[in-house]
Amino acid sequence: MKLEMEKLISHLKTMGFVFQGSEIYGGLANSWDYGPLGAELKNNIKQAWWDFFIKKNPYNIGLDSSIIMNSKVWEASGHIGNFNDPLIDCKACNSRWRADKLIEEKFTEMNVGGWSNEQLENFIEEKKIKCPKCDKTNFTEIRKFALMFKTNQGVIEDMTSTVYLRPETAQGIFVQYKNTQRALRKQLPFGIGQIGKSFRNEITPGNFIFRTREFEQMELEFFFSPNDSKNWFQYWLDNVQDFLENTIKIKKENYLLREHDKDELSHYSSRTVDIEFKYPFGIGELWGIAHRGDYDLSQHQKVSGEDLTYLDPVTNERYLANVIEPSVGVERLLLAVLCQSYKEEALENGERVVLSLPNNLAPYKFAILPLQKQQVEKANEIYLNLISKTGISGTFDDKGNIGKRYRRQDAIGTPYCITIDFDTDNDGCVTVRERDSMNQNRVPINQLEEYLKENTK
Amino acid sequence: MKLEMEKLISHLKTMGFVFQGSEIYGGLANSWDYGPLGAELKNNIKQAWWDFFIKKNPYNIGLDSSIIMNSKVWEASGHIGNFNDPLIDCKACNSRWRADKLIEEKFTEMNVGGWSNEQLENFIEEKKIKCPKCDKTNFTEIRKFALMFKTNQGVIEDMTSTVYLRPETAQGIFVQYKNTQRALRKQLPFGIGQIGKSFRNEITPGNFIFRTREFEQMELEFFFSPNDSKNWFQYWLDNVQDFLENTIKIKKENYLLREHDKDELSHYSSRTVDIEFKYPFGIGELWGIAHRGDYDLSQHQKVSGEDLTYLDPVTNERYLANVIEPSVGVERLLLAVLCQSYKEEALENGERVVLSLPNNLAPYKFAILPLQKQQVEKANEIYLNLISKTGISGTFDDKGNIGKRYRRQDAIGTPYCITIDFDTDNDGCVTVRERDSMNQNRVPINQLEEYLKENTK
Repeated sequence: MKLEMEKLISHLKTMGFVFQGSEIYGGLANSWDYGPLGAELKNNIKQAWWDFFIKKNPYNIGLDSSIIMNSKVWEASGHIGNFNDPLIDCKACNSRWRADKLIEEKFTEMNVGGWSNEQLENFIEEKKIKCPKCDKTNFTEIRKFALMFKTNQGVIEDMTSTVYLRPETAQGIFVQYKNTQRALRKQLPFGIGQIGKSFRNEITPGNFIFRTREFEQMELEFFFSPNDSKNWFQYWLDNVQDFLENTIKIKKENYLLREHDKDELSHYSSRTVDIEFKYPFGIGELWGIAHRGDYDLSQHQKVSGEDLTYLDPVTNERYLANVIEPSVGVERLLLAVLCQSYKEEALENGERVVLSLPNNLAPYKFAILPLQKQQVEKANEIYLNLISKTGISGTFDDKGNIGKRYRRQDAIGTPYCITIDFDTDNDGCVTVRERDSMNQNRVPINQLEEYLKENTK
Repeated sequence: MKLEMEKLISHLKTMGFVFQGSEIYGGLANSWDYGPLGAELKNNIKQAWWDFFIKKNPYNIGLDSSIIMNSKVWEASGHIGNFNDPLIDCKACNSRWRADKLIEEKFTEMNVGGWSNEQLENFIEEKKIKCPKCDKTNFTEIRKFALMFKTNQGVIEDMTSTVYLRPETAQGIFVQYKNTQRALRKQLPFGIGQIGKSFRNEITPGNFIFRTREFEQMELEFFFSPNDSKNWFQYWLDNVQDFLENTIKIKKENYLLREHDKDELSHYSSRTVDIEFKYPFGIGELWGIAHRGDYDLSQHQKVSGEDLTYLDPVTNERYLANVIEPSVGVERLLLAVLCQSYKEEALENGERVVLSLPNNLAPYKFAILPLQKQQVEKANEIYLNLISKTGISGTFDDKGNIGKRYRRQDAIGTPYCITIDFDTDNDGCVTVRERDSMNQNRVPINQLEEYLKENTK
């Protein structure tokens, strides 16, 4: 069964994972808010990334830099000059398009990433590519549309106070590379990672949370000596796949690696691999791993005038570190997890929607369900004791028949439903039902905490 | 000994907690980046808040709404009309000032929060308040300066696409109140909390991270029936103090409660209490707890035309929920924790700077220190095993004499220094030194994980 996006989006809204942004005001184009369950799931994914890439990795340390930075940062990074989309208008119906996408949607095998405006215009004319809206072939010339959000800081609205919302978290790391290395007395190789919001004024956002103007990134910049013979690219490619498969539980058959061709690579990159996920709407980028050479540090060194070289304590040489950048969007990872988890299953007595989320990511780890009114008080006591003592995220539900309550917990991915029943008072045990197998176990109340900790970590 | 801010700021930079934002480009006014240790400490504070107020509290659920929202949100909230500062210029020297602050800095007992422009102007003239820069008394009229950052979204830069960076996280909660209540099938009373960035184009940011244009909030909006007789204000005031004293370990003598006077209250608020911290530069707001009545929901109901009332399942009445809002800035809490923790102590053989951070908040919970070269390999093995197995944040240091290494860990607040020495090979134990008492214990290697978990939670 192929999952339809509309079905998933509707399910996620109804259940409290993702709402349309500003919905009561008619929304705001392609903006999404994360409801209580989406917020927990997103937090769990970010926490898992931070644990794996920062806390558990011996090379890496974290950072949390500002969204608004000195505008010179974006001169150095090239975003002010080059970060824009090639737009053309249809002269017949006035609709507006991205020239590169017009081509790539018509010729799906092509990648025109590196093309000049002239190349794009010529190709569109030559191949007589039509306006998707009115079928005419009469376009304007290409104009560049800047993708950074611009605003003003300070009391006077003039040029000197123009600032931008960062279009990526990476540059914050490069700008604080020297401070960080010095303060933590780090020796190469080492990495700096951060999680945070970025903003791109995309012309064609879409596919639900796959491409939005406001989004969250988890980026790692790994610095190493140009003389280091270890294959760090492979090390990080392996680590990313390890994380995907064993922590986030993305199945091997649901993603693929795509090595960038020579003519697709940025001029400074010697190797780039995209990890692509099979989304319901097509194959799309999930994670990019790029060898960036010393491009970023050399740019910042040039524009800032600060010495960003590293003094090798062994060879006494000075050089700029090389960089490998594994970069992933939180929402894309979240969407991959959700798409893979959503299932409709036939049961003996009906059907169910189940979100088979990995237990470590599930918003609620457990639900406490008193079987009948008589057990509500006892059940609530167990619930309050569990959450206040452990901080394990859970919920309580005493509304409706037990079958309906199971269906609801299945639909939001809760791995364990804990039923308090007539026998509980006698034997001090509760029934624990597992989401995917629907198997049931009797577990002593005083072992619940350990049981949940053990099975949801 | 009174802590000097300059000393603290310098310490935090040197040690890798807080760097000047965009420093290699000469900075950006009052912007700060969090280095590896600051990022961990900030994460730990946010995690502690989320655990306490969301996961461990039976009433509350979380949310993660967008920074950029439909602009009508800010019409409804009043921010577009009223969220601005009263600015005046000195006609003699052209310096620019906030009229209200000019008065309050001269007359420190006064609070002119609710005054009109005319009142402010008349008072300044009457009392002959001087320009702090040139001592003249010749000011322009007051002009309003909007505090929201404005930008444009979408392809065409016209009025219809003007959007704002949110000046508070609270409105995202009100806007999704109905969706959240419905999806989670919540009954009153319940609360919705969120953590996220907000932006205010402050005229006079300052005092290090106390007031910055980009900052992070942790806000809870607690909804309850207007007929509910429970004193929820007191409940949240108690909870906030419980959190401050027992989780974040802010000492009672370092903060105070300030009840807002009747004439200081917003027109919709029946009660507001500020929790103020004794910062080195003076007493400043840390946490605000405000009774907001049904003001926010009624405004959004009016402007959006959506029915935001709640149908009481018991009385079958429809009404708007009342709201209590405990709201705190992450950076202010962080600063309070840092100010309280920073100590300079005389030792027998010199002196030390020690950050007596609560163990649960410390960036690194432990440092592994091999006593001599011979133990480096063994020590590294223990280190790698600990971090990769547990995800407990820690560090490894084999540089310099052991005294210097202790000093460094003291200075960054690491609660436990673990020394691997000559006896380790024989008895399988390591020496664990506690930061504040400097007491030492022998602990078996295979009990380290439990020891650290137990003592740093």
